[in-house]
Amino acid sequence: MTQWVYTFGNGKADGRADMKNLLGGKGANLAEMSNLGLPVPPGFTVTTEVCTHFYSNGKAYPDGLIDQVNTAIADIENTLGKKFGDETEPLLVSVRSGARASMPGMMDTILNLGLNDKTVEGLAVRSGDARFAFDSYRRFIQMYSNVVLEIDHHNFEDILETHKEDKGYRLDTDLTADDWRLVVGRYKEVVQAKLGKPFPQDVQDQLWGAVGAVFSSWMNQRAIIYRRLNDIPESWGTAVNIQSMVFGNMGNDCCTGVCFTRDPSTGENVFYGEFLVNAQGEDVVAGIRTPQQITVYGKKAQNSNLPAMEEAMPAVFKELDDVRHKLEAHYKDIQDMEFTVEKNRLWMLQTRTGKRSTKAALKIAVDMAAEGLITREQAVKRIDPAALDQLLHPMLDPKAQRTMLAKGLPASPGAAAGKVVFTAEDAERWVKEKGEKVILVRAETSPEDIGGMHVSEGILTTRGGMTSHAAVVARGMGTPCVAGAGTIRVDASAKTMKVLGHAIAEGDVITLDGSTGEVYLGAVPTVQPDVSGDFATLMEWVDEFRTLKVRANAETPLDAETALKFGAEGIGLCRTEHMFFDPKRIIAVRQMIVAETEEGRRKALASLLPYQREDFAQLFRIMHGLPVTIRLLDPPLHEFLPNTEAEIADVAKQSGVDEATVKARIFALHEVNPMLGHRGCRLGITYPEIYEMQAQAIFEAAVIVSKETKTTVVPEIMIPLVGTKTELDMLKEAVDKIAVQVFTQTGTTLPYQVGTMIELPRAALLAGKIAETAEFFSFGTNDLTQTTYGLSRDDSGPFLEIYRNKGVIDSDPFATLDQEGVGELITIATERGRKTRPDLKLGICGEHGGDPASVEFCHRAGLNYVSCSPYRVPIARLAAAQAALGGGGSGTK
Amino acid sequence: MTQWVYTFGNGKADGRADMKNLLGGKGANLAEMSNLGLPVPPGFTVTTEVCTHFYSNGKAYPDGLIDQVNTAIADIENTLGKKFGDETEPLLVSVRSGARASMPGMMDTILNLGLNDKTVEGLAVRSGDARFAFDSYRRFIQMYSNVVLEIDHHNFEDILETHKEDKGYRLDTDLTADDWRLVVGRYKEVVQAKLGKPFPQDVQDQLWGAVGAVFSSWMNQRAIIYRRLNDIPESWGTAVNIQSMVFGNMGNDCCTGVCFTRDPSTGENVFYGEFLVNAQGEDVVAGIRTPQQITVYGKKAQNSNLPAMEEAMPAVFKELDDVRHKLEAHYKDIQDMEFTVEKNRLWMLQTRTGKRSTKAALKIAVDMAAEGLITREQAVKRIDPAALDQLLHPMLDPKAQRTMLAKGLPASPGAAAGKVVFTAEDAERWVKEKGEKVILVRAETSPEDIGGMHVSEGILTTRGGMTSHAAVVARGMGTPCVAGAGTIRVDASAKTMKVLGHAIAEGDVITLDGSTGEVYLGAVPTVQPDVSGDFATLMEWVDEFRTLKVRANAETPLDAETALKFGAEGIGLCRTEHMFFDPKRIIAVRQMIVAETEEGRRKALASLLPYQREDFAQLFRIMHGLPVTIRLLDPPLHEFLPNTEAEIADVAKQSGVDEATVKARIFALHEVNPMLGHRGCRLGITYPEIYEMQAQAIFEAAVIVSKETKTTVVPEIMIPLVGTKTELDMLKEAVDKIAVQVFTQTGTTLPYQVGTMIELPRAALLAGKIAETAEFFSFGTNDLTQTTYGLSRDDSGPFLEIYRNKGVIDSDPFATLDQEGVGELITIATERGRKTRPDLKLGICGEHGGDPASVEFCHRAGLNYVSCSPYRVPIARLAAAQAALGGGGSGTK
Repeated sequence: MTQWVYTFGNGKADGRADMKNLLGGKGANLAEMSNLGLPVPPGFTVTTEVCTHFYSNGKAYPDGLIDQVNTAIADIENTLGKKFGDETEPLLVSVRSGARASMPGMMDTILNLGLNDKTVEGLAVRSGDARFAFDSYRRFIQMYSNVVLEIDHHNFEDILETHKEDKGYRLDTDLTADDWRLVVGRYKEVVQAKLGKPFPQDVQDQLWGAVGAVFSSWMNQRAIIYRRLNDIPESWGTAVNIQSMVFGNMGNDCCTGVCFTRDPSTGENVFYGEFLVNAQGEDVVAGIRTPQQITVYGKKAQNSNLPAMEEAMPAVFKELDDVRHKLEAHYKDIQDMEFTVEKNRLWMLQTRTGKRSTKAALKIAVDMAAEGLITREQAVKRIDPAALDQLLHPMLDPKAQRTMLAKGLPASPGAAAGKVVFTAEDAERWVKEKGEKVILVRAETSPEDIGGMHVSEGILTTRGGMTSHAAVVARGMGTPCVAGAGTIRVDASAKTMKVLGHAIAEGDVITLDGSTGEVYLGAVPTVQPDVSGDFATLMEWVDEFRTLKVRANAETPLDAETALKFGAEGIGLCRTEHMFFDPKRIIAVRQMIVAETEEGRRKALASLLPYQREDFAQLFRIMHGLPVTIRLLDPPLHEFLPNTEAEIADVAKQSGVDEATVKARIFALHEVNPMLGHRGCRLGITYPEIYEMQAQAIFEAAVIVSKETKTTVVPEIMIPLVGTKTELDMLKEAVDKIAVQVFTQTGTTLPYQVGTMIELPRAALLAGKIAETAEFFSFGTNDLTQTTYGLSRDDSGPFLEIYRNKGVIDSDPFATLDQEGVGELITIATERGRKTRPDLKLGICGEHGGDPASVEFCHRAGLNYVSCSPYRVPIARLAAAQAALGGGGSGTK
Repeated sequence: MTQWVYTFGNGKADGRADMKNLLGGKGANLAEMSNLGLPVPPGFTVTTEVCTHFYSNGKAYPDGLIDQVNTAIADIENTLGKKFGDETEPLLVSVRSGARASMPGMMDTILNLGLNDKTVEGLAVRSGDARFAFDSYRRFIQMYSNVVLEIDHHNFEDILETHKEDKGYRLDTDLTADDWRLVVGRYKEVVQAKLGKPFPQDVQDQLWGAVGAVFSSWMNQRAIIYRRLNDIPESWGTAVNIQSMVFGNMGNDCCTGVCFTRDPSTGENVFYGEFLVNAQGEDVVAGIRTPQQITVYGKKAQNSNLPAMEEAMPAVFKELDDVRHKLEAHYKDIQDMEFTVEKNRLWMLQTRTGKRSTKAALKIAVDMAAEGLITREQAVKRIDPAALDQLLHPMLDPKAQRTMLAKGLPASPGAAAGKVVFTAEDAERWVKEKGEKVILVRAETSPEDIGGMHVSEGILTTRGGMTSHAAVVARGMGTPCVAGAGTIRVDASAKTMKVLGHAIAEGDVITLDGSTGEVYLGAVPTVQPDVSGDFATLMEWVDEFRTLKVRANAETPLDAETALKFGAEGIGLCRTEHMFFDPKRIIAVRQMIVAETEEGRRKALASLLPYQREDFAQLFRIMHGLPVTIRLLDPPLHEFLPNTEAEIADVAKQSGVDEATVKARIFALHEVNPMLGHRGCRLGITYPEIYEMQAQAIFEAAVIVSKETKTTVVPEIMIPLVGTKTELDMLKEAVDKIAVQVFTQTGTTLPYQVGTMIELPRAALLAGKIAETAEFFSFGTNDLTQTTYGLSRDDSGPFLEIYRNKGVIDSDPFATLDQEGVGELITIATERGRKTRPDLKLGICGEHGGDPASVEFCHRAGLNYVSCSPYRVPIARLAAAQAALGGGGSGTK
């Protein structure tokens, strides 16, 4: 018989931390804590295999499950001396989901299960607090009705609000036991009215209803979207944890809280956390009451005037601090823990690897390596390369003038400016339909807002703490967030907010600094990020481990300088066409295109030559001897032609032809599928004079800079869109001829290489032949993806979205390399190319060069380098190091 | 020392017929005829290796060549008792090119070489005919000056015309010896004036100048174009044949002619040929004088009133007829021979495999197999599959009204109608720029006209015979041609022609019947070709040998019927979208596209269902149990949307929405690269209701026709543009569901298959996985070529033309499969697909399915069938048989 149920608590457990696939993260760690002897309320985990069985068998449970659950409940009963459904010593349980990967707030939870009209009386007697017992019962009815019976919250809230008004109460705590008893009665009437049958009184019915609801919540819309955003496969399923209840709301010697072994925002090695006295755990996470700090240090840092746990409950705090040290030493990583204190007794409800900001991740990794807790290799493997992105972008300029509106909690670091919107739907609409950058402003966020949060530049809430939904999700997404900025008054229905006398309407611009919690009026200028400190230390270690080189795609001096600053080891792709769009040059480019003769084209090209030469000279100067790969003109000529009548008239005038001629040329150059059209080396073959000019500019610039700097510049000239060896042969011959001319004229001979993009499946297949001529290959994975997949990057957005929603593809092949298809072509080309020319230099350029999973593939495929946008160079370096270290390196996501 | 020179003549030779690669066709066959003991004027061949050496060494000759040539000349001198450059017994030679493949008129020839101011006197004495000697000398000066010294013909023609006018002569034959002596003097003055030095008198200078000119002519523009049109590699080079002169122009006991062992136009087993009394060979080929027939039979057939050779020179005719039989028995194929009779002595100057019309080729092959001369296998291998095309298209309707304008020679069979043009340049311009169909009308054609001839529908000349340039080239191209229609008066400069009182201007339409030689006014209706007789016999043999099945691409009943008539064994591709364009249906299609909801789309689709069901029912009825592969909707939806305001208004009205909505939908569906866009199975995934309707129509039609005909219809449903296995899985599941519905409703269950197009490189690479679901693959080589090569079929025309001209590619990859690139993907997919599913059915559809070289590839790749357009089915059958028989099967091209 398969074991479907794993028990924990009472200092032992069936499971272990490494059984996450089977028990989910929560269940595995509850088991691990039990084994460590920590105080865990006894309970058991129903495995993810049950979930899989549930979905593949029309929502039916496997044989044996009910018996195993009954046995496990009996175990808890024995341990605690309580009985499930018993009228005098009732056992109450929580029922929670727990997937392999953490999905905060995405699935359903039910607390206080086991209460009914009879057991509630028992609880009142046993706890000596009838008010508590009936408050718990009404919470249970509300939660269970919402999650299992699908009766909306507001039905219950209305009853409570009415009752409070009738009685003149302000707070929930004003209600007496009799008030709650009355409210419970009305709640049950609602259920009877909505369902035509009473609220379930049988505790077994309650239990199986809750288990089914948790499994069903795996497929709810929120969970589906979250999985898609976080690349979590549907097939993993969730486990269900059934655990005896402990109560943080049984009086002022009770509390509940969330804490981290280190500060998850800064990474500082200080105990960090929040708690609420006389509350249940959900109250902390929901961010409804403003919590108190765990430590005095934290209280001071937050300017809080509420007592810290360290002051209020020093003994239990000490116990909790011991747990903190024990868990971090055991897991060797920052832990995110949930606890409840019931009548001064500490209970651990959860531990998991703590989500952290990237800045914190760096600090923690570097510190832990310094502390000897982990090795440098482990430190490097700990950092999620993709998350580095948020550190590498501009920060608020400290010298910039600014008008501060408010200061909230620094919930997720980074600076963001954008137009204010007040609902998640508006955020999605403004971004997708108008292309705007938005800041989502909410009193608090909920899992329904996930889509809008994802598209926002930044998130601002007026309630909730560092562990509120908004804060946790924003950190995970790398989106700047300021939480709990309580001085701001939001009127969501009017779509306005007020603060410090400013009235800010939808569409007005504000700026957030998620690293300080500050909110500013308008757009505040930014500066380049600081890449020293922990970042620099970690990147030094990274460079020790990696074997794959990292270059940058760069064509402007600014790009090249940024690339160098971020550690690029050369330029892997300089797109020469970007240089053609400069206003001073575009006219000559257009004259060249409208010219009817080679002579006319040569004349126009001659006027472009000095510009191109200086472009290349600047790059060679900045890169100072590092390799620079220059791709000759790639896009179809029609991309340079004007669209408007005014521009057409202008081009006609400047080219000395009539407008009809220009229009005729535009018409003649129009293409049905420009991606597969007259571009790349096809231009070089049909208009040899274009590539000749570019080659001349490259060689002349190389000679000038070599003389100037007394450093040999070795240009790498790259021919795009090669499909046949003959194309490359002809164009290499033309380039070689220009080289001889320039070297003869200048009396200086320089080494240089001629290579090709591999961006067509045919080129990959014929790589063995092409390598007879090519001295290097650069895989143009953008175009190679387009052709291999038959997928236009410009057109596929709408249906790729549907493809992801329907589970046809796991990830966007333009963001993460399609290893099965495109990757096989890269492997084929690598093998065949190197067979012909063992020292063939191989790299990739294009979006994938900065994508960690793709970098890992490039390492495995044996490429020499990846080339990516300058800001992604550190990401690629880190990913390359993780690839070299092997074993995944999934980071801290 | 390499042997650069191979001698022949005098009953023996160094070479043989199978040494064409080294000696060229002409040289090898001169050697073979010598070995057979036939009368061949002695001479020698300078090998093609010398040509290769010449071009790879800056036009220098290899060591040893001069000595070997001198030795070979000495041999001829010894044999004939003449001496090269000798004043009393001068040896004269011809210098001719001779490539591996025949290239008629493409390269240069020089006759009478060895004449100078002194040897001409010797020739006058020895021949006893000073007039002949000086005529020969002036011919030599003119030819040599033109070919070697590059002095234009007209310089010499002007002198001759002036002299004739001065003397009041009408014909060249009116000139006396003294006249020619005078003309020779003036010719030499022209050379002196043009070159600043005299006409070369040294016979060695003459010889090497001529050899160099022949080698150089290998790279002239005409030859380059001819090779491109006929797929002859540049690397083959040409040989040079130097042969002692014999003279057909030494009096009325002399003649020269061209003959075929059978009639090259009809294939009849009759001796066929033309000759001219007292003429040199070039006079026959150039078509300047109207020639006489060889046989009395031919004379009658042509209604000629000139005596046949059989009557005029019976003894020599008998000798020639013996040669005819000897050669045909030896070569086992129709021979095309050139001969000269010098003073009643027969000399054979050339034999080669005779070019023939396709109709003749069929008859000859079938006859020769019947005669036991060749086997059926050889007969099948003899026919060029591509050339079959001309037999398979409509012929003039015998019952159609027509106005005959003229009757010329039936020089190349087939019917053609088009607009009259009078120059080759106009032909090219009208076809390429205006997209017109043209008939090229010329007095006579010359090699410079080759480009214009190639694009014309038909060719009409007013001079020249069946072996004139126009006739030979047109037959080679399979273009209908009427030659020597002497009653037509052409005024090429005015661009008009007159005949029988009709004045026909450029752009007027005429019709040619190349099978009868008739020319008609206007466009005459045509009828389907006769596919019985020799054609039917040969196709029966073809089907015995081939293993590859041949299906047709067909969607209309007419297509399907034509396909069956031509022997198709099923439908390999029924494109369902073609059915959507019918005016009755397009409105529903457009309503479906503009619908905003699935419900709206389903409503529109429901109205399309009965049409689609009847479409499929018709095809199933016609194909009567043969397999029918139906491809579900493939093109992007925007292809169905209207372009004009009126149509947009119409769609809006009929769909009950406003025009702005329709325009917005058109805008939203616009794609930058529709080839790589939202099409194929991507439509099936995003709008499942479309494929569901199509599947329902297919299954319902199959059930109806199965019941009706009591034959089980087995539909093959094909999913297009699959790139991932998941796409196919989802769509197959949807199709299976519809099948169950239809089978349940109708109470009839039918077998069916679901398969996929392999038309993306990714699909080919992942074929192993895709075959887990797909029951068959059909390679969509059109799209696979587009994606593998990154080449848009719609946009690549202009630069592919340049690519062919510059030698980047040998053939259009959309016409002939790119075996290296696309072919490798087919091979990969075949191997991987069959590994997963050994009985996987594999075919190709698309243009390549009817291209012989591509069919040969498909046979080798192990596919089960090819599918092509109905008219190309016999071509594919023949190509498949030749592939099965192996050994090339290059046909008679």
